[in-house]
Amino acid sequence: MQLSSRLLEQAVAALNTLPSVGKKTALRLAMHLLQQDSSRVEDFCQSILAMRKGIKFCQKCHNISDDDICHICLSPSRQTGVVCVVESIKEAMAIENSQHYNGQYHVLGGLISPSEGISPNQLQLQSLFERVRTGGITELIMALSPTIEGETTIHYIAQHLRDMNIKISSIARGVSFGSELEYADEMTLGRSIIARTPIQR
Amino acid sequence: MQLSSRLLEQAVAALNTLPSVGKKTALRLAMHLLQQDSSRVEDFCQSILAMRKGIKFCQKCHNISDDDICHICLSPSRQTGVVCVVESIKEAMAIENSQHYNGQYHVLGGLISPSEGISPNQLQLQSLFERVRTGGITELIMALSPTIEGETTIHYIAQHLRDMNIKISSIARGVSFGSELEYADEMTLGRSIIARTPIQR
Repeated sequence: MQLSSRLLEQAVAALNTLPSVGKKTALRLAMHLLQQDSSRVEDFCQSILAMRKGIKFCQKCHNISDDDICHICLSPSRQTGVVCVVESIKEAMAIENSQHYNGQYHVLGGLISPSEGISPNQLQLQSLFERVRTGGITELIMALSPTIEGETTIHYIAQHLRDMNIKISSIARGVSFGSELEYADEMTLGRSIIARTPIQR
Repeated sequence: MQLSSRLLEQAVAALNTLPSVGKKTALRLAMHLLQQDSSRVEDFCQSILAMRKGIKFCQKCHNISDDDICHICLSPSRQTGVVCVVESIKEAMAIENSQHYNGQYHVLGGLISPSEGISPNQLQLQSLFERVRTGGITELIMALSPTIEGETTIHYIAQHLRDMNIKISSIARGVSFGSELEYADEMTLGRSIIARTPIQR
């Protein structure tokens, strides 16, 4: 695509680097920004820069935070004895939005993956073990993806903490709400039968 | 959606203002930007700001330009006697990308629309008439949308220039390449029969 302005071309190229933004969409976004007030575009860029430069990671749970310790770790209304272990901040956000969890988090920053060369010491595992050793934690809830990497990571953590007197659980695997049973994969269906729950009568 | 960082929240809100970027997509874009090097995010914002602040409009054809007169108006290899009249810079871009046009453009900045309160004097019509009066133009090609507004604008321009000795044409309306005839609307199909073209034998 040939554009009549190099400045526009450069902005389109920049927007094109965003995930799932193709050249046509990038042009549409650029045209939109071109039609906005200059001050609005400045605010737009300012909030992106402020985020990139200002965001910290909580020193306790490694979730994103505006301060050294995040507001979840600091909140007096949350259970401090239960820690939900997640792969990344995205999963912590998703669980937080379910509004069914009132404990703490621990963000690993990845999963153990020999095939991708991610070893345990590249993840926030030592700080998790440190948190457990410091005491006060009664349960770890493993909210990791049901993949080989997720299972490996769960196994590694469980092995490492086998002498500690804490409960380690995994979020339930099963058929999703609203999904058709006939389309569920065999693995999920099999597990959902093994992990069947009694119906209250 | 509740996020654990106000800075992230503000960046998501900013990205959410872009066309067809919902809250979930905005969050995904923000997470992407968060994972980039700080210098890359600065470059990203810089190219958007440079575009917004640096882009000018060609004083002759009102297309976007990095200079006072755009490179199409200045180009010695383009026909100066033919001017393609378009609604906005988007249409000029689309025609330019078809690579079938080698004349000049004139960007109106909209179409006459009584229902939306857009009157002729809000558009770049006087400067079009001025260009025609100055001489040198032999043909105006109307490349406007086949809507009431488009037809009204064509009629207005044609009426205004009825005493001038120039050809005024409209881009061909007809059935699109690759489209199924049975799905073409009646108006298009009707026009395509009236404006039928002889087949070379």
